[in-house]
Amino acid sequence: MSGYPHNPSGYGAPAQPYGAPQPLAVYGAPPQTKPQKDYHKPSSSPYGIPQRDEYYGSVPVTFPPGTETNAMSCFYTIDKDSDGIIDDKELQKALLSYNDQSFSIPTVRLLMYVFTKTNTRKIGPKDFPQVFRTLQSWRGTFVKFDIDDSRMIDANALRDALTSLGFVVSPVVLDLLMSKFDKTGGKNKTIEYDNFVVCCLIVKGLTEKFMENETSYYGQVTFSYEAFMLTILPVLIA
Amino acid sequence: MSGYPHNPSGYGAPAQPYGAPQPLAVYGAPPQTKPQKDYHKPSSSPYGIPQRDEYYGSVPVTFPPGTETNAMSCFYTIDKDSDGIIDDKELQKALLSYNDQSFSIPTVRLLMYVFTKTNTRKIGPKDFPQVFRTLQSWRGTFVKFDIDDSRMIDANALRDALTSLGFVVSPVVLDLLMSKFDKTGGKNKTIEYDNFVVCCLIVKGLTEKFMENETSYYGQVTFSYEAFMLTILPVLIA
Repeated sequence: MSGYPHNPSGYGAPAQPYGAPQPLAVYGAPPQTKPQKDYHKPSSSPYGIPQRDEYYGSVPVTFPPGTETNAMSCFYTIDKDSDGIIDDKELQKALLSYNDQSFSIPTVRLLMYVFTKTNTRKIGPKDFPQVFRTLQSWRGTFVKFDIDDSRMIDANALRDALTSLGFVVSPVVLDLLMSKFDKTGGKNKTIEYDNFVVCCLIVKGLTEKFMENETSYYGQVTFSYEAFMLTILPVLIA
Repeated sequence: MSGYPHNPSGYGAPAQPYGAPQPLAVYGAPPQTKPQKDYHKPSSSPYGIPQRDEYYGSVPVTFPPGTETNAMSCFYTIDKDSDGIIDDKELQKALLSYNDQSFSIPTVRLLMYVFTKTNTRKIGPKDFPQVFRTLQSWRGTFVKFDIDDSRMIDANALRDALTSLGFVVSPVVLDLLMSKFDKTGGKNKTIEYDNFVVCCLIVKGLTEKFMENETSYYGQVTFSYEAFMLTILPVLIA
C-alpha cells in the first residue's frame, strides 16, 4: 500500500528540546488546596506534585498512568488560573516560554483538536501529557534533521522527519506540503519549526481521519457529502 | 440527498459592497504602454481601460469575455508592479483598501487556491474577475443577513446565507462551522465578515472537491490514502 503510513501512532520517540534544553524540575510548586474527603487516592509525590486523581484547586486532576513528572509540572505552570483546564491562550503562552517558539492561535487550536478530538479549545490532564510528549518528540526530530542549525529544513529532511515519526508520504504529497508550508512562497523550499509542527499536525490529523473511516482491506475510504464535511472540517485551521 | 449542495455554482447574485459602496470608476488610469506589433486585438475602451487580449506593460492581459469594466479597473489598480499578475500581498492590500477589511495572508492564499486551483499564490486576469464578482456577492449576502448592522451574523443567518449562495449544510455541519469560526471561542455564537469569507471558501472548496471526485449516482466519494491527502491538503490554510 504505497504512500500509506506504516506506523501512525509512533510519536513516542524520546527527544531533545530545540536549542538549549530547559530544566523542567524548576517549575513552581503547584497549589496544595485539597478537599477533606477521603478519595482513596495516592498521596503527593516527593516533588510536591499531586499524583493522578488528586485535586487541584477545586477541580479533580487525573493524569493517565505513567505520566512524567515534568509533564505534570508543566501543566500546573501553564494553568495560571488554576481551573484544572488549559485554554488556547494559556497553551500559546506556555509554548512560547517553554519552547521559545511562537505559535499562532489557529495552530494552537489545531493542536488541541488533534489531541482532544473536540472543538472546545480546552485541554485537561487526560490529554495534556501526550501533547507534551509529542511536541518534545517533534522538536527533537526537527533539530535532528536541521543539520546546519539554520532553524529550517528542506524537502528531503521533511520527508525523513515525517518518516521517522511514522508517516510515509509520496513525493507528490511532499511537494504539496512544501508549497503550503514554505513561508517564502516556494523561493527557499524550506520550512521553519512552527510550520513543521502545523505540517505534522495536519498529516497526523488527516491520516487518523483516514484510518478511522477505513472500512475495507483495500486501503480506501468512502464518504457521503455529510460525512466528508464532518470528517474534514475539524482538521481545518480556524 | 440530504445535506447536499443544490446549486454549488450559484455565486453570481448581484450584491452591494459592505457599508458605504466605493465608486469603482475612480481608479487611476491604467498604464498605456503597448507593443507596436499588430495583434488584431480590439481597441481600448472609452474608459481608457484595455480590453481583453490587450497588452499591459509587456504582459498580455486576457480577461474572459464579459468581464465587467470595474473588475478590470480593479485589477490594474491592484497590480502595482504592472507585471500582469497579482500576488498574495497585492491582493491582501487591495481587499483592505477596497473592502476596508483585513484578511490574513493564509485567507488570501486560500482565496487564490479556491479560484485558481493552483498553489502558485498568484492570480491573473483569467481568474480575477470571478474573485471580484464572488467577493462582491459574499459581501452583499453578509450585509443582507447582518440585520442589526453589528458586523456579525449568528448561526441561523449563516445557514440562510450559505443556502442563498447555493450550499445547504446540515445542522451538525452548521454547528461545526460556528464552533470553528466564532472568534470568541463559542461565547457569542456569531461570526464576523472575514471569517464568513473563510467559511464560504472552505465550504466551496470542499464541496467542489467532493463533486470532482463523485463517481457514482449515490452521492458518495471513495479515496485511497494518497488521493485523500492530495484532495484535502490544498484546501487547508497555510
